Amino acid sequence: MSSSFYSSSRERVRSFIESQRFESAITAVIVINAIGLGMETSPAIMAQYGQLVSTLDRIAIAIFVVELSLKLFAFRLSFFKNGWNVFDFVIVSVALFPLSQQFSVLRALRILRALRLVSVVPSMRKVIVGLFSAIPSIGTVIVMLLLLFYISAVMATKLFGTAFPEWFGTLGHSLYSLFQIMTLESWSMGIVRPVMEIYPYAWAFFVPFILVTSFIVLNLFIGVIVNAMSEATDEEAHGEREEILGELRALRREITALREQGEN
Amino acid sequence: MSSSFYSSSRERVRSFIESQRFESAITAVIVINAIGLGMETSPAIMAQYGQLVSTLDRIAIAIFVVELSLKLFAFRLSFFKNGWNVFDFVIVSVALFPLSQQFSVLRALRILRALRLVSVVPSMRKVIVGLFSAIPSIGTVIVMLLLLFYISAVMATKLFGTAFPEWFGTLGHSLYSLFQIMTLESWSMGIVRPVMEIYPYAWAFFVPFILVTSFIVLNLFIGVIVNAMSEATDEEAHGEREEILGELRALRREITALREQGEN
Amino acid sequence: MSSSFYSSSRERVRSFIESQRFESAITAVIVINAIGLGMETSPAIMAQYGQLVSTLDRIAIAIFVVELSLKLFAFRLSFFKNGWNVFDFVIVSVALFPLSQQFSVLRALRILRALRLVSVVPSMRKVIVGLFSAIPSIGTVIVMLLLLFYISAVMATKLFGTAFPEWFGTLGHSLYSLFQIMTLESWSMGIVRPVMEIYPYAWAFFVPFILVTSFIVLNLFIGVIVNAMSEATDEEAHGEREEILGELRALRREITALREQGEN
Amino acid sequence: MSSSFYSSSRERVRSFIESQRFESAITAVIVINAIGLGMETSPAIMAQYGQLVSTLDRIAIAIFVVELSLKLFAFRLSFFKNGWNVFDFVIVSVALFPLSQQFSVLRALRILRALRLVSVVPSMRKVIVGLFSAIPSIGTVIVMLLLLFYISAVMATKLFGTAFPEWFGTLGHSLYSLFQIMTLESWSMGIVRPVMEIYPYAWAFFVPFILVTSFIVLNLFIGVIVNAMSEATDEEAHGEREEILGELRALRREITALREQGEN
Repeated sequence: MSSSFYSSSRERVRSFIESQRFESAITAVIVINAIGLGMETSPAIMAQYGQLVSTLDRIAIAIFVVELSLKLFAFRLSFFKNGWNVFDFVIVSVALFPLSQQFSVLRALRILRALRLVSVVPSMRKVIVGLFSAIPSIGTVIVMLLLLFYISAVMATKLFGTAFPEWFGTLGHSLYSLFQIMTLESWSMGIVRPVMEIYPYAWAFFVPFILVTSFIVLNLFIGVIVNAMSEATDEEAHGEREEILGELRALRREITALREQGEN
Repeated sequence: MSSSFYSSSRERVRSFIESQRFESAITAVIVINAIGLGMETSPAIMAQYGQLVSTLDRIAIAIFVVELSLKLFAFRLSFFKNGWNVFDFVIVSVALFPLSQQFSVLRALRILRALRLVSVVPSMRKVIVGLFSAIPSIGTVIVMLLLLFYISAVMATKLFGTAFPEWFGTLGHSLYSLFQIMTLESWSMGIVRPVMEIYPYAWAFFVPFILVTSFIVLNLFIGVIVNAMSEATDEEAHGEREEILGELRALRREITALREQGEN
Repeated sequence: MSSSFYSSSRERVRSFIESQRFESAITAVIVINAIGLGMETSPAIMAQYGQLVSTLDRIAIAIFVVELSLKLFAFRLSFFKNGWNVFDFVIVSVALFPLSQQFSVLRALRILRALRLVSVVPSMRKVIVGLFSAIPSIGTVIVMLLLLFYISAVMATKLFGTAFPEWFGTLGHSLYSLFQIMTLESWSMGIVRPVMEIYPYAWAFFVPFILVTSFIVLNLFIGVIVNAMSEATDEEAHGEREEILGELRALRREITALREQGEN
Repeated sequence: MSSSFYSSSRERVRSFIESQRFESAITAVIVINAIGLGMETSPAIMAQYGQLVSTLDRIAIAIFVVELSLKLFAFRLSFFKNGWNVFDFVIVSVALFPLSQQFSVLRALRILRALRLVSVVPSMRKVIVGLFSAIPSIGTVIVMLLLLFYISAVMATKLFGTAFPEWFGTLGHSLYSLFQIMTLESWSMGIVRPVMEIYPYAWAFFVPFILVTSFIVLNLFIGVIVNAMSEATDEEAHGEREEILGELRALRREITALREQGEN
């Protein structure tokens, strides 16, 4: 009896948390909570409404905890099979920490709760799924970009590390500086021209680096574009092909009828 | 009688304002007015021809007011159903303000009248309509970009606001600074390197921010490209399909004739 | 007799200047001349081989003058109907000026003769023709970009001209500064942040300007991409369609034969 | 006998070096070696484990030398017909130099051995082959970009060389500065505005240079995109066409059968 009681209430909870009304309510809580967390950045607002804002924040967290508990009760361990549920679970858990501890970084991370909007609104979820679906086709290119960064950072550290410790002193500094150079920010006036005053041939390292990374990033872009494009045209082409094939099949039926006519 | 008199003159006014000649005249007035407003920026020209320039400006505004009055008379309230008419109405109305008041910002806004060129020239209107037609397919991505900006701005304000009030002091300052960082302008030498001198791990916030916004903007671009592309190929594919289907239908007629031949 | 003598020698000259050997020789002269003009930038080389370099330059110009004279003789006025010939004529004419005058700008323009390589090598000519073929489809977008620049420059001059004469003092200064801002070079740290110290709401002018110009430039790119793409796929689609239509026509012939068989 | 002994051992060596196990082992050695060379950049690690790191490096080189010797033995001179083998051979040879000499640049080049990962992992090899396959279609555009750079550098050196020797003093300096301007880094605030203080019309040289190079680079991108796209759609279109053609051929067989029926 107890088992059937649980399973029937599980059903009811499941249909409740999958209802449109419940989803809209959670979306509203996420938006209100995000606005509240934004208000915390203004000392003027906090001085007047600080009490209200932090009360609203606690209510929002309480609602999220109840929501996830209901979901855990309804779906049990299969709850964790859905990536979006794991995402929600981690974000709400992170949000619980700063209540006990007072590290400023953890407090700042609470706004990440607003990212739950992505996991709740289906059209946003679709965009993220689309982004991830492009990864297999560009995975190799990303690995090659990382390899190129690693090789270039080792070389830059060995070549320019002693003369320019601030930019190329360690592998980490070099990786950061090379990332800056890849984005083309102040690469010449800020970095390469000063380096060339000591190593006049430094351009022979940095100019090819810029050309090669630009070309690899271009290939990354093209991979994503071709992926998105072929998906879009696939659907169109499918419709077209279906129509032509339908017409061809009608033709064949017509001829088969003709043949049977001849046989009679 | 009076009603029929009005409706017949409405017809005549309508055919007049829709004539090619009237449109060309209005286009000419817009161009001349734009050149005049450009001359106002030169003190040398204004010293000599100031009187002429401001007289021409008043004549242009008078023509625009007459034009829109005629359109309002001809189309009555259905005038406001057309978005381009509303656009013209707002722009000319804004232009009327600085005649009475002397705020410099409102005076500067008068040049916006040159934007009427877009609403008058059909090919430009088509480009704008094309741009807006792309919005539904990229709307979700834009909302996600705004969400990411909001979340990042709240975090940046909380993390770096006290140490760098000029860049991240308030939510508004943070939003502007993050926009600058997204455009990659002086992001490293100007902002992140100074910030890293106090918070050595600041790169862990800014580098992912750059990567994620770049990826979202790339998706925005791809959305627009795929949209424009599929429109362009749709037309082509349509023509092709029509030809093949026409051929197939001719074939079927041929076979039907054959069948009837067999029946006789 | 004299007339037929001229026309027959015209024929011979024409076949000579259209021969592969003549084209290769001219290409070689262009390349050698370009290298020579490059050497002129090095004082060390000029000190030793200056006499040789300038002699080679004069020989090259003499060859070009003879070449164009032959073409003029062979094609008479129809010579000027070909855009590439006009291009060659203008560039060689410009090259003749510095022999008499000593203006440094005109001397610097002599290297433009190396551009003749584009008009001589067919594959390069094809690229340029391709670029120009894209212009009709993007012409309206370019006009709109120019209109936006003009409007923004007038506004910027009126709003910020008095406080920042170096950047927005005249319409010309504003146009240049806005072009710099469109390329995103130092737009924030270099221009907008200093302007915001006096006009705190300046971002409301510059941020939309950046967004709108980026969007228009994106549309320019898309116009060129879609143009290039549809040309490329047109050819493919054409081949495909031809094959399917060929098959369909063979089918129809088959059926017509069948029908005639039935009639007999 | 000796000849047949060699050829049979050649066979065995060949099947050994083409085995999956051998390839995985070499990949592991490359990765471990790359990590080791990265550790060399850290003085802290080298102080403690320096002996171990350099021993591992020597072992890795020994393994590479043995690997390439085996390949040379197995394939003899046809070893050099494969571009990837030549690539491996050059990289390992470069790696041997610093063992005898102590030039820091050559020591820094040893990390290039990590690039062997590209030649060993098939999916990366495929990406590189894809990049090179795009070159023919963009070769002309690259030559034109180089031509434009050469012409612009000669002009810039002649026009601005004497006043700004640091940026445009020699052809090499000008080429580097123009590359920086093409990447839009500090082009206005850093270079063109200072130049305009002496030559007020310098913008008439640099603004067109930026526009033209941007347009050529855009064409380069489009060439690569159209290339990648048409490859991707080719495969799709092929499948589609095959299906429609198959259906058409089935139809024709049907009709031929009908005709034979009629003849009997």
